[in-house]
Amino acid sequence: MTLIDAVPPDRDAVQAAALRIRRHVRQTPLLRLPGAALGVPVAELWLKLEHLQRSGSFKARGMFNRLLQCQQEGQLPAAGVVVASGGNAGIAVADAAAALGLRCEVFVPASVPAAKRARLLALGAHVVAQGDSYAQALAACEARQQASGALWMHAYDQPDVVAGAGTLALEIEAEAGLPDRVLVSVGGGGLIGGIAAWCEGRCRVEALEPRGAPTLHAARAAGRPVDVAVGGVAADALGARRVGAVAWALNHHIAAAHLVPDAAIHAAQALLWRELRLAVEPAAALPLAALMSGVVQPAAHERLALVLCGANFDPANLAAESPHV
Amino acid sequence: MTLIDAVPPDRDAVQAAALRIRRHVRQTPLLRLPGAALGVPVAELWLKLEHLQRSGSFKARGMFNRLLQCQQEGQLPAAGVVVASGGNAGIAVADAAAALGLRCEVFVPASVPAAKRARLLALGAHVVAQGDSYAQALAACEARQQASGALWMHAYDQPDVVAGAGTLALEIEAEAGLPDRVLVSVGGGGLIGGIAAWCEGRCRVEALEPRGAPTLHAARAAGRPVDVAVGGVAADALGARRVGAVAWALNHHIAAAHLVPDAAIHAAQALLWRELRLAVEPAAALPLAALMSGVVQPAAHERLALVLCGANFDPANLAAESPHV
Repeated sequence: MTLIDAVPPDRDAVQAAALRIRRHVRQTPLLRLPGAALGVPVAELWLKLEHLQRSGSFKARGMFNRLLQCQQEGQLPAAGVVVASGGNAGIAVADAAAALGLRCEVFVPASVPAAKRARLLALGAHVVAQGDSYAQALAACEARQQASGALWMHAYDQPDVVAGAGTLALEIEAEAGLPDRVLVSVGGGGLIGGIAAWCEGRCRVEALEPRGAPTLHAARAAGRPVDVAVGGVAADALGARRVGAVAWALNHHIAAAHLVPDAAIHAAQALLWRELRLAVEPAAALPLAALMSGVVQPAAHERLALVLCGANFDPANLAAESPHV
Repeated sequence: MTLIDAVPPDRDAVQAAALRIRRHVRQTPLLRLPGAALGVPVAELWLKLEHLQRSGSFKARGMFNRLLQCQQEGQLPAAGVVVASGGNAGIAVADAAAALGLRCEVFVPASVPAAKRARLLALGAHVVAQGDSYAQALAACEARQQASGALWMHAYDQPDVVAGAGTLALEIEAEAGLPDRVLVSVGGGGLIGGIAAWCEGRCRVEALEPRGAPTLHAARAAGRPVDVAVGGVAADALGARRVGAVAWALNHHIAAAHLVPDAAIHAAQALLWRELRLAVEPAAALPLAALMSGVVQPAAHERLALVLCGANFDPANLAAESPHV
């Protein structure tokens, strides 16, 4: 695809995105706690409850921003939009397209769980299950886009999508000021790219990745985006094989990239449920996991923003915990 | 007991409570949605996420307020505090007492579930399981209080407890202004009493009760607090047998009291989980249940505040739903 603009978004782009999408997405709550509430020896934890966002993840912000931007410019094709994703991105595109009255095709591997397929169908999307792998679904999506002229929606690597994600950081600053650090999980880098674009080095933006999906960590080690093998607990939401070009262009605004073990991710997800009744997907638990496991060791006076980025998962395993009675 | 002051709290008392407890309790988030997000034909729904409060319910506010007030006045006995409750009130007292370094005895019926007992023990409380019913636990608690001189904490019917609960409404107004209505569930009336004291008729405060536990509804019909039989889905949290004297003294600031069928409560609880991943107890689902069932029928232009008052329940049944994938 040639739709990826090399110019990454800046603060003006994030500000414009915030104005553009404000009537369509939710301003998600910020829950401010003393660190002791979760056993973390810092002054304050600010939990950005983005898992309460429309369509269940931060992806709504970027997808609405791209669609509304194209709409304003008169560039929405009659063929509608296409996306290859069985996860949060596909759900967000289907939801945003439905809200704006656009035709939407979502390409997924044939192995996609029935529940996800049903959710996409309930949002009015046309679901095309093709091939055994994500790569095959992607290839089918590309062929379809070239044939139909539909608007291509990338899951994370388009400037408007990244700028939309950055509005999450703008909201935090507008409500509470800048924290000392923002801790955010990384898959393809769309979310951290947007946050880095907004913060511009005014506070530390730190990346958390599962050991099984270290796209940004590997890119920083290699000096350029490289493919990585993907697996582990959070592969569903953070399983991009390579960090996006847009996010990579903002890498200089990212202070650190840490790897988090799967066991810590599980423990953090369970703690959020047990202590706070917050039901988040594993990907959303990485910031707390990094603190609980000592991967990130802030000073006692710090105020940390933790982005709880999504809630799209099967919570059956959480209920088994249920000690908060 | 003679500790119930006949003078109900006013706005000044709620304001003072807010200042007193601010360093101990959480300012809980307000999630503002278009009504359409939950299928309700109104302009805005403001969900007060009080189930994210410390100790899992709004009870923390009132209990901290009473303990801190007594502390300021030098009236905390060396014997500590006593409370009769196996539910949210007992948990909140145990948590607040632990935070302030006070001895705490919680009296519960012998039938109390092991999980609740374990939670109270984990908070450092001395748990006294006595008798087959709540009434017997209450009698044992009263006897103990008279023997030891400990501070008696009522679950809902003390002015400081009601004033503390009212800080929830103050927070809503400070963040978003006054809504057209506040919808809140009622057990003994401590929460709605505090909200009514703060709102003072400046917006409609409406009570929701399960058909199986209509304490305020029955009192308004009889012209005075009367005992009711208690049962049904929300009896655990809303199972007081009689509305409190403090709340009753504020009844003139309560615009209406509605009864909600159990089936609607279940449906609302499930919808909050399915659409928003909010895990709340049945008692916290009554405001939405009243809207879904048509028990409350607001005008299209209205902005409604819905108090999600607690999260202390066994969520095993929610996970079985899990369609939000």
